[in-house]
Amino acid sequence: MTLYQQFAEELKQQIQQGYYPVGQKLPSIRAMSQLRGVSISTVQESYRLLEDADLVYSKHKSGYYVKSPLKTASLPELSQPEQRPVLIDNWQEVLALTMTESSQHFLALGRGSPDTSFSTLKPLQRLMNENIKQQSKQVFSCAKGNGLLKLREQIVRLMQHSGCQVHPDNIQITAGCQEALSLSLKALTQPGDIVAIDSPSFYGSMQAIQSNQLKVLEIPTHPQNGISLPALELALEQWPIKVLQLIPSSNNPLGYIMPEKNKLKLLALAEKYDFAIIEDDILGDTVYHYPRPRSLKSYDSQQRVLFCSSFSKTIAPGLRLGWVAPGRYSTMLTHLKFVSSLGSASLPQLAVADFIEQGYYDKHLRLSKQHYQARRDIMLHWVQRYLPEQTKVSFPQGGYFLWLALPEGIDSFQLNQHLRPYHIGIAAGSLFSASGKYRNCLRLSYANPPTEAVEQAIKILGQQAQLLLQQSD
Amino acid sequence: MTLYQQFAEELKQQIQQGYYPVGQKLPSIRAMSQLRGVSISTVQESYRLLEDADLVYSKHKSGYYVKSPLKTASLPELSQPEQRPVLIDNWQEVLALTMTESSQHFLALGRGSPDTSFSTLKPLQRLMNENIKQQSKQVFSCAKGNGLLKLREQIVRLMQHSGCQVHPDNIQITAGCQEALSLSLKALTQPGDIVAIDSPSFYGSMQAIQSNQLKVLEIPTHPQNGISLPALELALEQWPIKVLQLIPSSNNPLGYIMPEKNKLKLLALAEKYDFAIIEDDILGDTVYHYPRPRSLKSYDSQQRVLFCSSFSKTIAPGLRLGWVAPGRYSTMLTHLKFVSSLGSASLPQLAVADFIEQGYYDKHLRLSKQHYQARRDIMLHWVQRYLPEQTKVSFPQGGYFLWLALPEGIDSFQLNQHLRPYHIGIAAGSLFSASGKYRNCLRLSYANPPTEAVEQAIKILGQQAQLLLQQSD
Ligand SMILES: Cc1ncc(COP(=O)(O)O)c(C=O)c1O
Ligand SMILES: Cc1ncc(COP(=O)(O)O)c(C=O)c1O
Repeated sequence: MTLYQQFAEELKQQIQQGYYPVGQKLPSIRAMSQLRGVSISTVQESYRLLEDADLVYSKHKSGYYVKSPLKTASLPELSQPEQRPVLIDNWQEVLALTMTESSQHFLALGRGSPDTSFSTLKPLQRLMNENIKQQSKQVFSCAKGNGLLKLREQIVRLMQHSGCQVHPDNIQITAGCQEALSLSLKALTQPGDIVAIDSPSFYGSMQAIQSNQLKVLEIPTHPQNGISLPALELALEQWPIKVLQLIPSSNNPLGYIMPEKNKLKLLALAEKYDFAIIEDDILGDTVYHYPRPRSLKSYDSQQRVLFCSSFSKTIAPGLRLGWVAPGRYSTMLTHLKFVSSLGSASLPQLAVADFIEQGYYDKHLRLSKQHYQARRDIMLHWVQRYLPEQTKVSFPQGGYFLWLALPEGIDSFQLNQHLRPYHIGIAAGSLFSASGKYRNCLRLSYANPPTEAVEQAIKILGQQAQLLLQQSD
Repeated sequence: MTLYQQFAEELKQQIQQGYYPVGQKLPSIRAMSQLRGVSISTVQESYRLLEDADLVYSKHKSGYYVKSPLKTASLPELSQPEQRPVLIDNWQEVLALTMTESSQHFLALGRGSPDTSFSTLKPLQRLMNENIKQQSKQVFSCAKGNGLLKLREQIVRLMQHSGCQVHPDNIQITAGCQEALSLSLKALTQPGDIVAIDSPSFYGSMQAIQSNQLKVLEIPTHPQNGISLPALELALEQWPIKVLQLIPSSNNPLGYIMPEKNKLKLLALAEKYDFAIIEDDILGDTVYHYPRPRSLKSYDSQQRVLFCSSFSKTIAPGLRLGWVAPGRYSTMLTHLKFVSSLGSASLPQLAVADFIEQGYYDKHLRLSKQHYQARRDIMLHWVQRYLPEQTKVSFPQGGYFLWLALPEGIDSFQLNQHLRPYHIGIAAGSLFSASGKYRNCLRLSYANPPTEAVEQAIKILGQQAQLLLQQSD
């Protein structure tokens, strides 16, 4: 890459991150040159590249302006969930979704698993084999307490990338992010308490809320900025909210990154209204641009953020390897982990610690993020091409999920049934709501290679959506 | 082995199981020959072998009588726990115990892990490696729902050995027996409910009871027959007991096997008083004699037994691989498992399914049981030799735990502290009580080879106990 290509790439990422919102004028060439300490010609060349890439347009004598990245599709609106605490009851649908395996005969476009066929995962297989041979005694024994120190040290290093300074003793290893979320909820609540969440939200954590006999209050959430803080504050005035749970960095399913200033405001609210925050960062490391966004936890001077994550989206869910940095709830979490499953398997901990330490994790992350970003653009292209015109679609900054809002009147459950004869499945939107909202929405995954079969499937998805749309008229 | 050696071995096991209690006359040589269809001379020779082994003695003209297997040590008495529901609060001590790893520098005689150095585990390492190479896609993905069918089918076969007829759909894979117990409790109870348990009892399940905000009622338990049914019935009359949890086959820590007739009586009580039973069978497959005892579950026509187990004691705790056969609570358990950790790692499931299917599990079990039984006798010998004379000790029928009742006045916590300078640890008895009983008791593990270092440690244990005894006088 030449210097100007590199600079253009940086600018592109900043545009996609929203540093330069759509319609805004970029700094003049001279200003940008001074601002960034690069030559005038580098800025000129990179602005030209951005223009070629259709990311900015130039107005004669005025400068360069950020273009809407997508010409036809617009973003979904701020979500409008139920304005009161509700109980959750859609387990059957969640089970049905999670049980659909992609196979030769079925294309599960809604599933949440990463692509595990990248060659950058090969070293992990080798490290697993080596540990089985050389550390058999440890592999056969269960890691009690906090988990293996060796891994916790690596996790602490990873967390520095999001601005966190955590001590290894303050990390609790868990069986995936789900266990981290589930134990965190348990540590913070009593049956009957109210938990606020961003909405749409991950169905797994909602099931955990349900099973802890808690009520959930869904907060309106914007597909570009995340949870609406005015709406949250209104809710806080009205309800005794114990905990806020959210996914601020590369949200599932919306793909946004919460702006920095909102993070600070949110922490101020947490202090004012004295609630704890469960920060689900499972997709934080998959954010396409560099550096990855800061976590809420990195601003958390009061130890009220429980930071939950895992290697399920970055490496493989089959490892069942996650963690929580529980702040002041550390002792409690260690106890709850013991109660839940005594300890964690040693093999994944040993192998992943080696994988990170030897630099393979960074390499793998870099490669997979590049692919996911490219696959996003292809998937967006197909969605715009094949789905009904009025379809709105998110513009994810990380991960591998698209959130589609189909024209009102299309029911994505029904759509899913219509897709079954074609051996295609999507994740129906209402799975992501506690109150059965988002029936016209759906989640698509672009984790897997954009093959012809996938294009064909999106085409069929479009046709079936169109049919339902006509029927609903 | 010759025929009579084999027959003597069978008789020996039956004596140890209690089929022929201490003091009872064995059938006459002629009667035994007819009873078992073996020749007179085989019976004669085998009775002589038993006499040589000090298991029976002959009275002139009368016949052969079962001798007390241990000349000096007697069994501990029926336990006398608190007679009312209590809350549990000894987490710090449990944590301290579980965090003591055996190492070159520390001999953790109280730990619960099996010996994982048997050569019969080698094929498992190979199978893990093969699955990592050949099934990488599956290894990297998380097994949702009930868990891998392939493993559940093997588990169903294993469970037939305890007389159970269960369908693979009625098995829920878990992260070890602890998760199985924890989810079962959650499925059956509401905060404030009363759970009855055998006493002494495994500290992990007591922590689960505590963390689910339940009260525990400890039922007096005999080191040879298990839970006292009259005491249980008395408790049932007095308290609204929701669940009974117990370890009937090769109890931890007492090592008994509940007699068949008591199992039937217990199920009748469960019907009469309408409570559910959590049967912890984690050591059931380690019972020394063949066939292994039937499980409560095998008599459970009403689907009120939740059968929990794992491969932690039979293969290795580091697999974190267990299961529950939840009877009528099947759907609930699948939901709770999802909430707790989404699903289970695939690699251990794949490898262990192969390990069982290819006959390696049976071989491994046979070998390890032989060793454990031999190690029991050596450990018993050392205990009798080195511990204060009045020490009472259990006579385990499976597993690898001894339960010692030291003379009153010796506090095993204090004892443990006195052992620390010698880099030796034991499991203090009060860990196994909800109400801090059994302070004069302790658990020893004989899982590991009976090396000189172990003998030395038992000797030191004896000396320190003696010192404390003198101080307490
Ligand atoms: C946002 C989010 N949080 C948590 C989880 C649970 O992940 P894990 O497999 O690490 O338990 C998922 C998985 O789908 C997820 O998407
Ligand atoms: C009686 C008993 N039940 C359950 C467990 C939990 O075992 P696992 O490692 O399978 O979770 C143990 C482990 O020590 C145990 O002794």
